[in-house]
Amino acid sequence: MNNLREDHDLAYLLQYENVAWYENGTVRILDRRVYPMETRFVVCRSYEDVAQAIADMVTQSAGPYYAAAHGMTLAAWQCRNSKDPLPFLRQAADRIANARPTTASRMRAITERAVKTAESALQNGTDLVSALRKNAIAMMEQRYRNIAKCTSYLVDVMPEKCTVMTQCFADTIVGMMLREAKERGKTVKLICPETRPFLQGARLTASVAVQQGCDVTVICDNMPGAILSGGTVDLFTSAADVICHDGTVVNKVGTMQIAAMAKRFGVPYYVTGSPDRTKQSAADVTIEYRDGDEVLTHLGRRAVLPGVKGLYPAFDITLPEYVTGIVTEKGIFSPGDLKAYFAEETEDFPNS
Amino acid sequence: MNNLREDHDLAYLLQYENVAWYENGTVRILDRRVYPMETRFVVCRSYEDVAQAIADMVTQSAGPYYAAAHGMTLAAWQCRNSKDPLPFLRQAADRIANARPTTASRMRAITERAVKTAESALQNGTDLVSALRKNAIAMMEQRYRNIAKCTSYLVDVMPEKCTVMTQCFADTIVGMMLREAKERGKTVKLICPETRPFLQGARLTASVAVQQGCDVTVICDNMPGAILSGGTVDLFTSAADVICHDGTVVNKVGTMQIAAMAKRFGVPYYVTGSPDRTKQSAADVTIEYRDGDEVLTHLGRRAVLPGVKGLYPAFDITLPEYVTGIVTEKGIFSPGDLKAYFAEETEDFPNS
Repeated sequence: MNNLREDHDLAYLLQYENVAWYENGTVRILDRRVYPMETRFVVCRSYEDVAQAIADMVTQSAGPYYAAAHGMTLAAWQCRNSKDPLPFLRQAADRIANARPTTASRMRAITERAVKTAESALQNGTDLVSALRKNAIAMMEQRYRNIAKCTSYLVDVMPEKCTVMTQCFADTIVGMMLREAKERGKTVKLICPETRPFLQGARLTASVAVQQGCDVTVICDNMPGAILSGGTVDLFTSAADVICHDGTVVNKVGTMQIAAMAKRFGVPYYVTGSPDRTKQSAADVTIEYRDGDEVLTHLGRRAVLPGVKGLYPAFDITLPEYVTGIVTEKGIFSPGDLKAYFAEETEDFPNS
Repeated sequence: MNNLREDHDLAYLLQYENVAWYENGTVRILDRRVYPMETRFVVCRSYEDVAQAIADMVTQSAGPYYAAAHGMTLAAWQCRNSKDPLPFLRQAADRIANARPTTASRMRAITERAVKTAESALQNGTDLVSALRKNAIAMMEQRYRNIAKCTSYLVDVMPEKCTVMTQCFADTIVGMMLREAKERGKTVKLICPETRPFLQGARLTASVAVQQGCDVTVICDNMPGAILSGGTVDLFTSAADVICHDGTVVNKVGTMQIAAMAKRFGVPYYVTGSPDRTKQSAADVTIEYRDGDEVLTHLGRRAVLPGVKGLYPAFDITLPEYVTGIVTEKGIFSPGDLKAYFAEETEDFPNS
């Protein structure tokens, strides 16, 4: 892990190093469902365990991508005595990629890259587990480099003193954005909607920010409109699970209504991430509906009478009309002009 | 209490009868902060206790208005041995009216009506406590009559089979709306945003609905936009803490962003309540900011690291552009045309 530590501040990186990590026949995943109240790990002993952990939202944001890459290493370890490991690895690639529907194509890019790495390793006679572990770490490093570029463009559009509203976790981007802003002498205050039902905003985004000494305020998910109408917010930003060719953004449910309110009250919305080559528009995206019961509890306590149902669309679709700019590793693009982005070769690994 | 029971279904009225009630030197208030997980009452032994209970949000929606009327009865009981009780009652009227800033002018109308009732009783030599108790019950009955008219107009605009999105509690209106719809053979499904941080939608609105046998689904406050974009909702409705002359609606925080999304996706928004004669526009309304710490806990459990702040605007301001109709006891008015409403004499007691 040292090669990662060298490049980054321990303060926030400690969180991400622990997100998902293969070691000696297990993948340890930080259980973000209970963090920061508890620091607990889910220990996976098979790729099936990894897929289940992803489906159960043990990790979110970019966490599932790390888990997928390390999960493929675990799959290689599981079939270490097989003479023909590829069918097993292909099965693992398929199972992990489909753990959650909305991000399946991006997850597939990661698990298929692992399968290709395995094919090369088999041809070259190198150790499979070792090759897949290196591949997973290389992906993480590539992602950090992409995010560093992306956040640099984002900080460009931030005023010297600014108040930024976030949505959901946004993973490493928030930490890197705050560090980059600080280095450039910009003062940032964060306003984080809490992101029910799993509270990624309150538990994760706000934790990263406060650990870096940032002024951070949590609000409920019914408050962004009220806050944005008050004229104190300079910029709204979120990551994205999918950015389509036509500039449509698919992200944690709630993003659309915040983006709409931001537009109404003149606050620019910058989404960070790499547009998805395989998605033309919202029609190509499957929105995941999770178990409605997840909505009915609050840190484990139920708040409704028997017979009351819950409904949990995990993502929503933000129309391009609400998006000011798409901040990628290649610069900022307007939502109506992503052709230029796709003109160049891109990395498979998402930088959301 | 029997005179109230005769007119209404026990199923939902039981909730409201217990909202706030004077009896033998106490006012009992149903503690809606813990209902329905627990049915517990706050027992007030002075008007100061009542004012504090209102400030602490022991009761919400129309609850504070009932508490105010019964709190004035309690004040009369407190000064039952005084030869000149009016100064004490005027002090109580002032204290209770100002318990929460956003609704102060409506609360004042109620407490001043109690003072006037006391003045008449003193002139006629009738018992003060008894006169104020009758006054409080008369106000409740008047309010039920107003709400019955109001919900009748609301049900007029509901399709035969319809899905209705609510916001916050809306108190008796939800119960009466469901009863009236049922009587007219209309089938209603409710979708209730949960209303963080106190969860009035999940705990109160959904409870009233499910106890009446209604199909009710709770969602998080970041989901209304996603649900409204899906085309399954026929109507959005909420009560209002204040409706201004210019059609601006002040209601539980989150109302504006739901109303904006409803407008964007072609879903009509009907707000119920009596417009406020004393408020021309949003400039005349004070938005209450509550203790930010209330945002940081979930049914009593804290979800953030030390150093993270909370912010809690209790209300927001919905622009008239998002309002389809204002449903009053006199009929439905467009937000731009409330002059006709004010042309007639109106009751002081709010029917929100």
